[in-house]
Amino acid sequence: EDEDENLKPQIGVVRGLAWTSVGGDTLSIEVNVMPGKGKMELTGCMGDVMKESAQIGLSYVRSIAEAYGIDSDYFEKHDIHLHIPEGAVPKDGPSAGITMALAILSAITEIPVRGDIAMTGEITLRGKVLPIGGLKEKLLAAKIVGVKEVLVPARNKRNVAELDEEIISGLKITYVEEMNEVIKCALKKESK
Amino acid sequence: EDEDENLKPQIGVVRGLAWTSVGGDTLSIEVNVMPGKGKMELTGCMGDVMKESAQIGLSYVRSIAEAYGIDSDYFEKHDIHLHIPEGAVPKDGPSAGITMALAILSAITEIPVRGDIAMTGEITLRGKVLPIGGLKEKLLAAKIVGVKEVLVPARNKRNVAELDEEIISGLKITYVEEMNEVIKCALKKESK
Amino acid sequence: EDEDENLKPQIGVVRGLAWTSVGGDTLSIEVNVMPGKGKMELTGCMGDVMKESAQIGLSYVRSIAEAYGIDSDYFEKHDIHLHIPEGAVPKDGPSAGITMALAILSAITEIPVRGDIAMTGEITLRGKVLPIGGLKEKLLAAKIVGVKEVLVPARNKRNVAELDEEIISGLKITYVEEMNEVIKCALKKESK
Amino acid sequence: EDEDENLKPQIGVVRGLAWTSVGGDTLSIEVNVMPGKGKMELTGCMGDVMKESAQIGLSYVRSIAEAYGIDSDYFEKHDIHLHIPEGAVPKDGPSAGITMALAILSAITEIPVRGDIAMTGEITLRGKVLPIGGLKEKLLAAKIVGVKEVLVPARNKRNVAELDEEIISGLKITYVEEMNEVIKCALKKESK
Amino acid sequence: EDEDENLKPQIGVVRGLAWTSVGGDTLSIEVNVMPGKGKMELTGCMGDVMKESAQIGLSYVRSIAEAYGIDSDYFEKHDIHLHIPEGAVPKDGPSAGITMALAILSAITEIPVRGDIAMTGEITLRGKVLPIGGLKEKLLAAKIVGVKEVLVPARNKRNVAELDEEIISGLKITYVEEMNEVIKCALKKESK
Amino acid sequence: EDEDENLKPQIGVVRGLAWTSVGGDTLSIEVNVMPGKGKMELTGCMGDVMKESAQIGLSYVRSIAEAYGIDSDYFEKHDIHLHIPEGAVPKDGPSAGITMALAILSAITEIPVRGDIAMTGEITLRGKVLPIGGLKEKLLAAKIVGVKEVLVPARNKRNVAELDEEIISGLKITYVEEMNEVIKCALKKESK
Ligand SMILES: [Ca+2]
Ligand SMILES: [Ca+2]
Ligand SMILES: [Ca+2]
Ligand SMILES: [Ca+2]
Ligand SMILES: [Ca+2]
Ligand SMILES: [Ca+2]
Ligand SMILES: [Ca+2]
Ligand SMILES: [Ca+2]
Ligand SMILES: [Ca+2]
Ligand SMILES: [Ca+2]
Ligand SMILES: [Ca+2]
Ligand SMILES: [Ca+2]
Repeated sequence: EDEDENLKPQIGVVRGLAWTSVGGDTLSIEVNVMPGKGKMELTGCMGDVMKESAQIGLSYVRSIAEAYGIDSDYFEKHDIHLHIPEGAVPKDGPSAGITMALAILSAITEIPVRGDIAMTGEITLRGKVLPIGGLKEKLLAAKIVGVKEVLVPARNKRNVAELDEEIISGLKITYVEEMNEVIKCALKKESK
Repeated sequence: EDEDENLKPQIGVVRGLAWTSVGGDTLSIEVNVMPGKGKMELTGCMGDVMKESAQIGLSYVRSIAEAYGIDSDYFEKHDIHLHIPEGAVPKDGPSAGITMALAILSAITEIPVRGDIAMTGEITLRGKVLPIGGLKEKLLAAKIVGVKEVLVPARNKRNVAELDEEIISGLKITYVEEMNEVIKCALKKESK
Repeated sequence: EDEDENLKPQIGVVRGLAWTSVGGDTLSIEVNVMPGKGKMELTGCMGDVMKESAQIGLSYVRSIAEAYGIDSDYFEKHDIHLHIPEGAVPKDGPSAGITMALAILSAITEIPVRGDIAMTGEITLRGKVLPIGGLKEKLLAAKIVGVKEVLVPARNKRNVAELDEEIISGLKITYVEEMNEVIKCALKKESK
Repeated sequence: EDEDENLKPQIGVVRGLAWTSVGGDTLSIEVNVMPGKGKMELTGCMGDVMKESAQIGLSYVRSIAEAYGIDSDYFEKHDIHLHIPEGAVPKDGPSAGITMALAILSAITEIPVRGDIAMTGEITLRGKVLPIGGLKEKLLAAKIVGVKEVLVPARNKRNVAELDEEIISGLKITYVEEMNEVIKCALKKESK
Repeated sequence: EDEDENLKPQIGVVRGLAWTSVGGDTLSIEVNVMPGKGKMELTGCMGDVMKESAQIGLSYVRSIAEAYGIDSDYFEKHDIHLHIPEGAVPKDGPSAGITMALAILSAITEIPVRGDIAMTGEITLRGKVLPIGGLKEKLLAAKIVGVKEVLVPARNKRNVAELDEEIISGLKITYVEEMNEVIKCALKKESK
Repeated sequence: EDEDENLKPQIGVVRGLAWTSVGGDTLSIEVNVMPGKGKMELTGCMGDVMKESAQIGLSYVRSIAEAYGIDSDYFEKHDIHLHIPEGAVPKDGPSAGITMALAILSAITEIPVRGDIAMTGEITLRGKVLPIGGLKEKLLAAKIVGVKEVLVPARNKRNVAELDEEIISGLKITYVEEMNEVIKCALKKESK
């Protein structure tokens, strides 16, 4: 479902990886920020764990926002809407944590995210990246849409080691331990 | 149920297409905006996915409203009510996304929507149009009420190709990939 | 249960018609407005569809209130309570829509509603009147309490045509397509 | 459970009558008003219909408060707590409507309510008194605690007529059609 | 679980008595007041009836607070947290009413409560003390922790009369009809 | 899952101990404070008892915050987010009470917490430490991650006495009765 134009950098849109009953899939996580009163809107048929993940991602971004020149009252004066298509497909789990945090950061800083990258990983409030499941299926899904690089939690190294080489051939696997590594790797360097 | 007068342009009213257990049907999506405090009221026996669709449509419109001369605090100072008759008929699913977004945009800009058009398509937060189901039944319902043109997600092209010619004869099918194509096609050109 | 005095005009009270498992019945829809903060209170053991109907009626009235000299911030500075006795009898469905809208309009304008009239019909956000069920039982109930005229959705004409003449003899049936016809017919002409 | 001192007039306390699976009982409806923000607190294990009844009673009182010298912003600047002991006994139904309305009126005006009176009746938003059930058991309970007079909905006249004379001997039965009759009868004449 | 130091007077902590499936137990009801916005926080795995009891206790205290020199806007400018350890043990019922009210009063006035006393009793909004169950088990629990005096609802007198003398030997039983008797008995005389 | 770097002091992060169906485990309790409006966000798939525990910890910290130089309106002007990874693992019970309270205190004072320590204990509103279960499994989990000292409720002394010596060899067990002992032991002395 992803076309070539989807490999271009975008602001507030990040490609995640999902593991479903029918195999891996890519998810496009979209964030809009609007003048408002500090409301967080979550849509895309998310379960409770995923909704909590989005809250964790938001709080992490709030804790580092000052370093990006974001005013301290920014979050009280804006509403944030995070959506994951397709709207009728139930989604849950914590593994989109780093993807959601990056999409929020990109949207509020207006710095684009690389379009040729995908990522998966649970995030903690302090930005540590925790391991996830379904890695094989997720990597296959990433290859199908043509991404060049996939960010994978460092604690999933052994899971990658167990995979057939052909699965990861052509994909650059980058291990991440902390959210700042995700940001350094996936957020475009040039500011707006 | 739609008479000729329903083919006239209206402000804040857009014709959608539904796919029910008993075939296709047209839906009249109505939006009223009122001085208020930023509340979104959704009525018409909608399920959760459809309610989320309306929120996505609203956020999309908020993200483009400036281009239509809407003040940045407009949405905090107005309430928006979106209703889909008939009130006792349960409705759900994401396929009214573009219809709801257009109805909101028309209501806040007071630019009328063409009455001789119908549309179906899921919307994402960034205004991409995603494919939908039940296309055959929806097109038949559109013909019955006499619309001239139907907006269909580009990704549903193959579904149209598989239909008998007589189903679409007399109907102009316009494929849309993004919400701005929907707006260009269905929102009347003359401002109020 | 309605006595003669109930056929006198009242402010904020309108007679609706209900269709229950034991036949038709009249409903007295009561509205009080009070200085407040824009809250809508709904009582009378209403189901979700009926509650939505009241919200639709309120939004419709807000959209036409200016024409009645109501200030634009009126609805933010008042609370509205709509009640339908009897309090322990569950009620649902959209068919009290026009009745509820008229009761709200009467209460805020303080223009009385004719007491010798009854009505039934679903309302849309734009004030269109949609057809309802149980017409025969409702008309019988209207006759019992002695009303002179009943407002019926125009799209129910064929249902009236199918009734025995004796059911409607002595009753003036007025067909309505839009809410402004309801208002013209049932709201007393003299202002307060 | 009611002692002699309970037959003295009190502010914000009114004796209601309940009909339970084990017979009739008296209920002491208590109301406290406090400086606040317009909150309504309901305690005493009440079901939804009874809670709605309290809201109707409150709105009725708000609609007549001006006649008692109550400022128009009184209800926004006070919290109202209505409690019905005993706290662990589930209670429901609309028949305490007039009792709750009178307790609220007494609490806000600080005019005491006669302690030698009991009452039962559903209230409408406009102060009409609707009939109730379990009259025989309720009258027996009223006699046991020694009240002199019981207010009964006028529409329950035939139910009283069917009772054995000894049940009502010694009790003054007063029929009420409207809430203002309840107020005239039960609220003490002397102002504070 | 209560040590000698627990028999010392404390501010905002009152010993209640509970009746559980495994016998009687003492409960330590703790109240903290903090600068805030008038929120009431209830923790300790309480059921709905017990939560309502806390609200009744709070309203009672608000109704008498002026006599203790508490400003009329005190309750809008403070948050109150009432907790009953142990946090994982479900608790319900109205019998901690007087205990909760006294703990709130002590916390806001900063007047300590006697530590050598325990109490049980439902409270009404007007401060009447209603009878409770499980008296035998509660008194035994009170003796075990070494309290000298137990406050018991006057309407439970006959229940005490039926107990073996050895159960109450060494315990001073004080009967209370109204909350002001509880306050006089358990709140330390010296003000802060 | 804890590495050496996790034994370093951190601000707003405290190591708790959990007892699950598959044995003991360590929990990293994380707290972020942000400019805000006094909201408490709790994530990490917590059950109701654990959520109440966090509220108790917060109220305890509010009651002692002045002694740490925290302004009285600090809590109304900040949002607090407490998270316990991993996000998909359900957690419940009161035994993380002291850990959560300490993490909140550390986050608001910006005083780091020792990283070579772990702790378990229910907290009351007044800061008493109540006993917990699963001590053996918790101590084993603490040893595995290399902590030097474990804070244990004093009332669990007998449970420790019953353990094999090898389980606790190499671990310093410190018994705590009150939260101030926890703070003295685990919060680093040097202020920021
Ligand atoms: Ca997909
Ligand atoms: Ca590292
Ligand atoms: Ca239809
Ligand atoms: Ca395109
Ligand atoms: Ca009836
Ligand atoms: Ca017409
Ligand atoms: Ca009783
Ligand atoms: Ca009368
Ligand atoms: Ca215990
Ligand atoms: Ca007395
Ligand atoms: Ca673990
Ligand atoms: Ca000690």
